[in-house]
Amino acid sequence: MHGQQTAKRTIWVSEDNPKEVCIIDQRYLPHELRVSKLRSVEDACNAIREMWVRGAPLIGATAAYGMYLGMLEAQRAAIPNGFMALNATRLKSTRPTAVNLKWAVDRQLEVLRQTRRVEDQVALALRTAHEIVEQDVETCRQIGQHGLELIKQAHAQTGQPVNVLTHCNAGRMACIEWGTATAPIYLAHEVGIPVHVYVDETRPRNQGAHITAWELQQAGIPFTLIVDNAGGHLMQQGQVDLCIVGTDRTTRNGDVANKIGTYLKALAAHDNQVPFYVALPSSSIDWDLPDGQAIPIEERATEEVTHIQGWDEATDKLVQVRIAPRQSSAANPGFDVTPARYITGLITERGICEASEAGLRSLFDAS
Amino acid sequence: MHGQQTAKRTIWVSEDNPKEVCIIDQRYLPHELRVSKLRSVEDACNAIREMWVRGAPLIGATAAYGMYLGMLEAQRAAIPNGFMALNATRLKSTRPTAVNLKWAVDRQLEVLRQTRRVEDQVALALRTAHEIVEQDVETCRQIGQHGLELIKQAHAQTGQPVNVLTHCNAGRMACIEWGTATAPIYLAHEVGIPVHVYVDETRPRNQGAHITAWELQQAGIPFTLIVDNAGGHLMQQGQVDLCIVGTDRTTRNGDVANKIGTYLKALAAHDNQVPFYVALPSSSIDWDLPDGQAIPIEERATEEVTHIQGWDEATDKLVQVRIAPRQSSAANPGFDVTPARYITGLITERGICEASEAGLRSLFDAS
Repeated sequence: MHGQQTAKRTIWVSEDNPKEVCIIDQRYLPHELRVSKLRSVEDACNAIREMWVRGAPLIGATAAYGMYLGMLEAQRAAIPNGFMALNATRLKSTRPTAVNLKWAVDRQLEVLRQTRRVEDQVALALRTAHEIVEQDVETCRQIGQHGLELIKQAHAQTGQPVNVLTHCNAGRMACIEWGTATAPIYLAHEVGIPVHVYVDETRPRNQGAHITAWELQQAGIPFTLIVDNAGGHLMQQGQVDLCIVGTDRTTRNGDVANKIGTYLKALAAHDNQVPFYVALPSSSIDWDLPDGQAIPIEERATEEVTHIQGWDEATDKLVQVRIAPRQSSAANPGFDVTPARYITGLITERGICEASEAGLRSLFDAS
Repeated sequence: MHGQQTAKRTIWVSEDNPKEVCIIDQRYLPHELRVSKLRSVEDACNAIREMWVRGAPLIGATAAYGMYLGMLEAQRAAIPNGFMALNATRLKSTRPTAVNLKWAVDRQLEVLRQTRRVEDQVALALRTAHEIVEQDVETCRQIGQHGLELIKQAHAQTGQPVNVLTHCNAGRMACIEWGTATAPIYLAHEVGIPVHVYVDETRPRNQGAHITAWELQQAGIPFTLIVDNAGGHLMQQGQVDLCIVGTDRTTRNGDVANKIGTYLKALAAHDNQVPFYVALPSSSIDWDLPDGQAIPIEERATEEVTHIQGWDEATDKLVQVRIAPRQSSAANPGFDVTPARYITGLITERGICEASEAGLRSLFDAS
């Protein structure tokens, strides 16, 4: 299903058919910009599990639209309340680490339980999904505004372009627009502060090389792609002014679970006195968990380690190649936990705070 | 030039023609075991620069044989002393970081200057190259014996298989036999101590996935391949008992330059109280440099970051694929420096010492 050449958002309801949800299918980036259509809960689960969409906020939004697609299925089958609870469970179980998934599905459940008429439930589910999406756009813009101050300060100190290192993709493609970690960068570029981004390629799925690099290239923001191994050396050499990353779950004490390898960059930033910030919408805060030790870490398929996807320029085709010996055993934890003590601050939609319970509570009335 | 299916060593003089030097051409591992032949200084320079051979000790050995091939060329052209100094300079300039290269070439120069008869020089160069190779084998075996004690101790403490994490390849393929970092592992396996290795894939050239994994598989030693991002998480989870890596240059104070990313693993080991050892032959000690800051760090081609080589299982061919957007800018520093303060100890052919000048001097009479 090839789609439009440029898409302003990462997920939207089809203009032709309001019973279809369109997504940018991120499996093909940066090589192809494809749009895929979701027509059922099963489609939504699959898109999340197989990483057609990824990034905590976008996973949440996709799950919210998944609940809407589920209500449509219930309507077609004339089953009041449908498989609402079952659908919620299925969607929540697609990926274990990002807490936005649970947050978005629970928000839908709360709204949908206000009525038992399936037509109303369909309309409510759609409206709630839209609200989640619009709220994400606004939240990311606010994160950008707060983070922008950090880039402004760094620029004021040196008068030089500000070098920001980021890991994985916490950009537009992880959200709806703007992104979290990249929102301050986009805004800095817009207001004319020179900014340059070191992009970790982010093995095994290469969201940095595939998505962040592509996003920045599209936006005309200078960047340099590096292997995940290189960031420590660059920090030792004084080539990084600031690290900004995203998070899939932030616990009450300010620990964050983010893409595997984030912890190593936080250690290097700490060792070299480079400020290390984590950008997050409050929907990624898990007030129930006391610290990061308790966050479930997803173990993904080992083929992501032993094989890699890329563009064969000789045949002009996307191919998968094996980069390990046949029958190598491999392990593939998807996330790691960066302890709060290595985080300079959390950039949220309400401002920047210390990575601690006191810091988070100073901005949010925690339930 | 396809060669024998198994090669006991990584470099040797051809049995058919003593004017040819055979190497395992590591560009094709783990997919194909090819032997290539070197017939001139130019061939030797090319093999080092283009990483047909790599690893500090093997680079040194190849350069030593390069000097021999240079004397053969001088003999054919009937030029006494040939281009001895020029050849030395050419070989030394192929790669900047590993100090064994300089060490091996300077050793040849010292020997070759003892005579002016080109026939004698050919014979001396061959003998010296052989000596360097035999010395490396013996040195690695001794490193293995000393490092074995660490694995024995770890096993005695827990009674469980010992989990060793290593970065890049400091194995047989980086040396002649045994390897440096892997020598203790091979010996532990030989004497029946259960050992399991976490192998960092080691982007961008993937020497871990391509070579270390292959070596261990050949030797029947259990291993798990991981992305470079994963090691910190595994250490947080208590899954690593010991890190052992190699080094391309060790400065007087015990700092080491090793494959890019080593520093990040040392930081994680330090943060999780995992012992972090560096295995090295004394030929990699640079007594002239006070600390690692002064080590020249090789910047390699950016194509190593934007493209990757792998086996296309559909067509059964080795192909190169692009993994970044077209025209991405990239940076590719080949090494980083791990400060001595993060190193638990240095494993040398004379024993294990503290990573410090005092430690090194306790084992070696420094010049």
